[in-house]
Amino acid sequence: MKREELVANIARKGSFLCVGLDPDIKKIPAHLLEHENPLLDFCREIVDATAPYCVAYKPNLAFFESQGVQGWIALEETVKYIRENYPDQFIIADAKRGDIGNTSALYARAAFEHLGVDAVTVAPYMGSDSVKPFLGYEGKWVILLALTSNPGSKDFQFLETGNDKRLFERVIETSGEWAGPDEMMYVVGATQGRMFEDIRRVAPRSFLLVPGVGAQGGSLEEVCRYGMIPGDCGLLVNSSRGIIYASTGHDFAEAASSSASNIAAQMKSLLK
Amino acid sequence: MKREELVANIARKGSFLCVGLDPDIKKIPAHLLEHENPLLDFCREIVDATAPYCVAYKPNLAFFESQGVQGWIALEETVKYIRENYPDQFIIADAKRGDIGNTSALYARAAFEHLGVDAVTVAPYMGSDSVKPFLGYEGKWVILLALTSNPGSKDFQFLETGNDKRLFERVIETSGEWAGPDEMMYVVGATQGRMFEDIRRVAPRSFLLVPGVGAQGGSLEEVCRYGMIPGDCGLLVNSSRGIIYASTGHDFAEAASSSASNIAAQMKSLLK
Repeated sequence: MKREELVANIARKGSFLCVGLDPDIKKIPAHLLEHENPLLDFCREIVDATAPYCVAYKPNLAFFESQGVQGWIALEETVKYIRENYPDQFIIADAKRGDIGNTSALYARAAFEHLGVDAVTVAPYMGSDSVKPFLGYEGKWVILLALTSNPGSKDFQFLETGNDKRLFERVIETSGEWAGPDEMMYVVGATQGRMFEDIRRVAPRSFLLVPGVGAQGGSLEEVCRYGMIPGDCGLLVNSSRGIIYASTGHDFAEAASSSASNIAAQMKSLLK
Repeated sequence: MKREELVANIARKGSFLCVGLDPDIKKIPAHLLEHENPLLDFCREIVDATAPYCVAYKPNLAFFESQGVQGWIALEETVKYIRENYPDQFIIADAKRGDIGNTSALYARAAFEHLGVDAVTVAPYMGSDSVKPFLGYEGKWVILLALTSNPGSKDFQFLETGNDKRLFERVIETSGEWAGPDEMMYVVGATQGRMFEDIRRVAPRSFLLVPGVGAQGGSLEEVCRYGMIPGDCGLLVNSSRGIIYASTGHDFAEAASSSASNIAAQMKSLLK
């Protein structure tokens, strides 16, 4: 999906919500466990319930991988289901991949050719040749980790690396030489609030994928105040647990729908 | 596998070779493509041909993932095959994973509980809570990226982060507070030669997983001169392409065997 299309979808729906698909076999409603593929049916119902309120889905590969072959089937079928029924959704494989060039090329093939998603999250530690193989696919995106939402983000990402640049700023600056804002986004955690000002200094035009609103405590208002690009939005704000586990009973889909709808309503007013 | 056992296997076999299983569907011998699961049969034959000369196998998950469900079956069956037939082999899932705590916990479950490998490679960018969920499994290991063998390692890993520590040294130092050398190893690329002296200053007792000998140009002698721990070895040197694609004809297994045997012979003399 091209940037213009994503921006148009956000404007049309009045939402920049990304729903994170983290289907934990130990957390999904018990009645689904009797189904042939519980993760798949869980994801399908969540997607049907939330699609009107979001512009993107982010299946988190760990949750599928932990179920082995069965999980991999659920992942492929979930992506296919979204593609066929909601073709205007942007699909992000949250994989945090990154390896030497020849191996990253295979991860790119897995994500873009086999799975057919629009974007994949990539870890920057191994540098240029670990990221570049994901680039150059028409309409596909790299979403590079910059400043994450977890406590461990403090361990390395804030290290001063000279020239008044912390590591996360250096990652954005250096990776800006590999790709422009039409094929690279950055992960920036919502828990970092004011940091969005610093991020916009080094990435004024880039879309940011923002986890950490909800379960992790980030504020949607702050993210928009400091991170939004006027006219373009430039944000995809992700919520996973707050939506997909809003209820763990038989009404999980209705609860997810209502949670997503609430966030979308907030977003609509923040977009104005 | 515990450290003592790994050290004993190295001493008994006179080898610290790790064979990297990177089964690329576009590179494996053409006659295997008619098989029901080409990647699996390729890996099985490579394992049978090389097991006498190595102490570890490192399936690279990208190569399996790129084949989707079929690839995931090949991965699971390859690990099972090694476990059943060569129980003294140390198995490393080369996955470069790492995410927020609850997600890393799922990756750990995937690797250690579902797949049943001994170790998994982990990327450090997201810090402590992205790494710790992989720890605490009895006899299992984290192998953390420190200094990699690819050109892109220059982009961030060598950045000066204060106190005369470059980022890769900082990663080793900080992660040393999370786990000791009985459950954490580091990836250090062979292409970095003399760097092993610097590494040993911050990680005197840790095992190092060393890629980059062979196709990427690293020297086995240099690695041993600067990186080996007397008595303990402390090294697992990986070779992938140089062994598994030594021939791409019908004789690929014999060629792999002979290539692995040559490296093992060098290792035997270097261990003395």
